[in-house]
Amino acid sequence: MKVLNVSSTKRTELIDITSAVRKVVRESGVKKGICFVYVPHTTAGVTINEHADPDVARDIEDTLDKLIPRNRSYRHVEGNADSHIKSTVVGPEVFVFVEDGDIVLGTWQGIFFCEFDGPRRRKVYIKVVEE
Amino acid sequence: MKVLNVSSTKRTELIDITSAVRKVVRESGVKKGICFVYVPHTTAGVTINEHADPDVARDIEDTLDKLIPRNRSYRHVEGNADSHIKSTVVGPEVFVFVEDGDIVLGTWQGIFFCEFDGPRRRKVYIKVVEE
Amino acid sequence: MKVLNVSSTKRTELIDITSAVRKVVRESGVKKGICFVYVPHTTAGVTINEHADPDVARDIEDTLDKLIPRNRSYRHVEGNADSHIKSTVVGPEVFVFVEDGDIVLGTWQGIFFCEFDGPRRRKVYIKVVEE
Repeated sequence: MKVLNVSSTKRTELIDITSAVRKVVRESGVKKGICFVYVPHTTAGVTINEHADPDVARDIEDTLDKLIPRNRSYRHVEGNADSHIKSTVVGPEVFVFVEDGDIVLGTWQGIFFCEFDGPRRRKVYIKVVEE
Repeated sequence: MKVLNVSSTKRTELIDITSAVRKVVRESGVKKGICFVYVPHTTAGVTINEHADPDVARDIEDTLDKLIPRNRSYRHVEGNADSHIKSTVVGPEVFVFVEDGDIVLGTWQGIFFCEFDGPRRRKVYIKVVEE
Repeated sequence: MKVLNVSSTKRTELIDITSAVRKVVRESGVKKGICFVYVPHTTAGVTINEHADPDVARDIEDTLDKLIPRNRSYRHVEGNADSHIKSTVVGPEVFVFVEDGDIVLGTWQGIFFCEFDGPRRRKVYIKVVEE
């Protein structure tokens, strides 16, 4: 299991980790298999979406903030109930296929760490499994 | 494939199944690998979130009920269209890593079966795959 | 890695791909393992839900369109920001277990390709991994 370190600078922030994940896969020596990406936090997540136009990530951030606002009345008293709920909606994990020693993504796809309660220092766990 | 039995007592209810999943992993004898958790129902799901403060699970339940209300006008006539939609938003599956014969979770993470059309008796399927 | 071709006919459309996935699994010769399904697009996704009553898929389409409307003010100027956001909410991937050479689904479960910016020709990547 490899561990990536990610630092967020805003409360809600999608951070492109595609290059870092690709590096782990290349260094693993696995030619054909699956790369599993896991976020061990309860107020963050991971998603795959367009990384050519950074406005897409901003729209995802804004829309999640609108659908699940910070200042609704929640039971959890730490002021980050919305962050936990966003984490469940987006999910804490993704997998991508590995072929010829590299990750297989669609033309526009990038992998994003999703911060929902930043700024913070975070970790991402990765396993690359041979087929 | 191992099968867990889960009984819900409310219509919408997050139920902590972390200990049960951990038991399956320990008994599998797998030291290093991945544990896959799958819900074979269309009005339920599975998520990973904070299980230290039970208010977080209650906030997730309430917010999903608000975003996808039971009594909107739907086509599906069984009165549980909202339950199906929640199932797709949360998702029917998660994976967690296995190291040293045990599941690897973040400090605050627990695994929750998500009931969206209870009370019912439900099943959860688990596979623990050696790396 | 196997590639399925899917053609959508509407902007938002859940398309049942259960039979096509099942065929890939049967032809793979894998008796016991996991089937991984991955969508290499940023305005589409894949989900598992009821495929007995087609109204369930229609309700999912309508509700996602209501929660994340096309004509809100977004930054991304291509007119499909909502499609990208739906993709992150639903997710680009699922896994299903394989036993006795066939996929294991719950009684009511089917696998749906989720088009959020059609009509288009799309691809779905599949890997069937032996346990």
